[in-house]
Amino acid sequence: MTDPLASWKDGAAKQAILNFVANATLPDSSTFVPPPDRIATFDNDGTLWCEQPMYVQAFFVFDRIKELAPQYPEWKDREPFASVLRGDIKSALAGGERALLEMVMATHAGTTTEEFAAIVRDWLAVAKHPKTQRLYTEMVYQPMLELLAYLRANDFKTFIVSGGGVEFMRPWTEQIYGIPPEQVIGSSIKTKFEWRDGKPVILRLPELHFFDDRSGKPAAIQHYIGRRPIAAFGNSDGDLEMLQWTSAGAGRRLGLIVRHTDGDREFAYDRSTMGSLDRALADADREGWVVVDMKNDWKRIFAFES
Amino acid sequence: MTDPLASWKDGAAKQAILNFVANATLPDSSTFVPPPDRIATFDNDGTLWCEQPMYVQAFFVFDRIKELAPQYPEWKDREPFASVLRGDIKSALAGGERALLEMVMATHAGTTTEEFAAIVRDWLAVAKHPKTQRLYTEMVYQPMLELLAYLRANDFKTFIVSGGGVEFMRPWTEQIYGIPPEQVIGSSIKTKFEWRDGKPVILRLPELHFFDDRSGKPAAIQHYIGRRPIAAFGNSDGDLEMLQWTSAGAGRRLGLIVRHTDGDREFAYDRSTMGSLDRALADADREGWVVVDMKNDWKRIFAFES
Repeated sequence: MTDPLASWKDGAAKQAILNFVANATLPDSSTFVPPPDRIATFDNDGTLWCEQPMYVQAFFVFDRIKELAPQYPEWKDREPFASVLRGDIKSALAGGERALLEMVMATHAGTTTEEFAAIVRDWLAVAKHPKTQRLYTEMVYQPMLELLAYLRANDFKTFIVSGGGVEFMRPWTEQIYGIPPEQVIGSSIKTKFEWRDGKPVILRLPELHFFDDRSGKPAAIQHYIGRRPIAAFGNSDGDLEMLQWTSAGAGRRLGLIVRHTDGDREFAYDRSTMGSLDRALADADREGWVVVDMKNDWKRIFAFES
Repeated sequence: MTDPLASWKDGAAKQAILNFVANATLPDSSTFVPPPDRIATFDNDGTLWCEQPMYVQAFFVFDRIKELAPQYPEWKDREPFASVLRGDIKSALAGGERALLEMVMATHAGTTTEEFAAIVRDWLAVAKHPKTQRLYTEMVYQPMLELLAYLRANDFKTFIVSGGGVEFMRPWTEQIYGIPPEQVIGSSIKTKFEWRDGKPVILRLPELHFFDDRSGKPAAIQHYIGRRPIAAFGNSDGDLEMLQWTSAGAGRRLGLIVRHTDGDREFAYDRSTMGSLDRALADADREGWVVVDMKNDWKRIFAFES
């Protein structure tokens, strides 16, 4: 038989996953979970793909500002745009959440949903990761792709529950992760149905609708999925409440934290500007969450490794 | 071969459905639609189950007010609650949208999501429809159950997109319609993740989050599903924009309107306090939408008919 988790080294993490799935799927056992209840939720940034040195969506924002700059000559003299156009990301981010939100709205709103999906697709087809010079869609973790496929082969329904923008993920998650648009949950801006040249369109508005992080994640899981996952996968304190909500359900549950420990093949960090792994790690032992040590638990991190 | 639409009379409506599905599923044809894109969206009230003489959820609201009244002695002297407690629904509704919203919040908020689901289940197990004395979950249209099953047997994914409350539908749609909670889209109130006696809960707050009707339906379809349906089913002008959005996509599309024409077996109405079928009917010809005449197109309306 082929190993469904071939990129995972034999060890406690892999064994915990195999045991959990075996228990959930064994008919007539006390731990059996009917297929409709086999809901598994995955964080995206840092859990399914690389989030360093910045979130991929942040690279998208900065590239879009440069692309759109000719239409907005005033940006040359206006922060945070002026700093981005000078290539000074650090200064651009110095304006904090307000500056970030302004940049997100300037680059994510004002188009129809179909136009935006095309912009994301076109960008991902050419943009490269600064460390590896690979496409961002190649910067996905091979062991997690195997885990997603393994769960689905065992009648789990796999969902993304990410702080990232939902419409930034949907154009590519089906092809890359096998997760269809309707199983992608993320942050969102408001939209509006309207008519344009005799055709209905859905317009993206420059106003935040929902921020899907921390305690927003379990609330979003209930709002969008309507039942509690039996397995949840994350990598930072942004996933803590999702892990807690999942673990607090009846019966066996699987919580798993991907820990970034491999500075050579990927990046080594618990704390970074892209979030911290602190409280969730402290709670892992007591809650029985599996902590994956990327350096020691994964044979390969990326498919392109030789 | 068994007729998958056995409760549908042979005629134009049934034939249009069979043709649409045959075209979408015929491999190597120009009209073939890959299974992941076979998204079908259904309105609920008046499309899948009976909405007369009132929305089922309205009966739930009034019953809950009576049930909760001992905890709120002040309701005896406060409208719209006082009218409900006197059995005068007409006066209770005279306060318009504001009175209705107040009654909805009083009966839908203040519990955890799990508590609310149990309340809905318990109520549906005993509450009876005033005309037939049947359980509300028996007041579902048999031809539409067959249509749902037929579409799913042809690899369609079926969704509810209803103005009704999403958490009022989810506790029973899987059992009654075969539609799991994660494929139910509806109106919602805000929620909050919090800790109670050392356990995480999601609390329902008395504040409207999203009203899923009219132009809100296509916006919700994009927000929750992330792709455009190829088939949409409704019964009133509240479904007009969903039908328009569906029909405006490329390739063949199916739009269908259930028209209530049978005063004996069900109710006969185009306009009622539960919404109007007016503009959507006027547009049906031009848009090529199928109009189902319940009296003449359906052999049986309810499964309990002899």
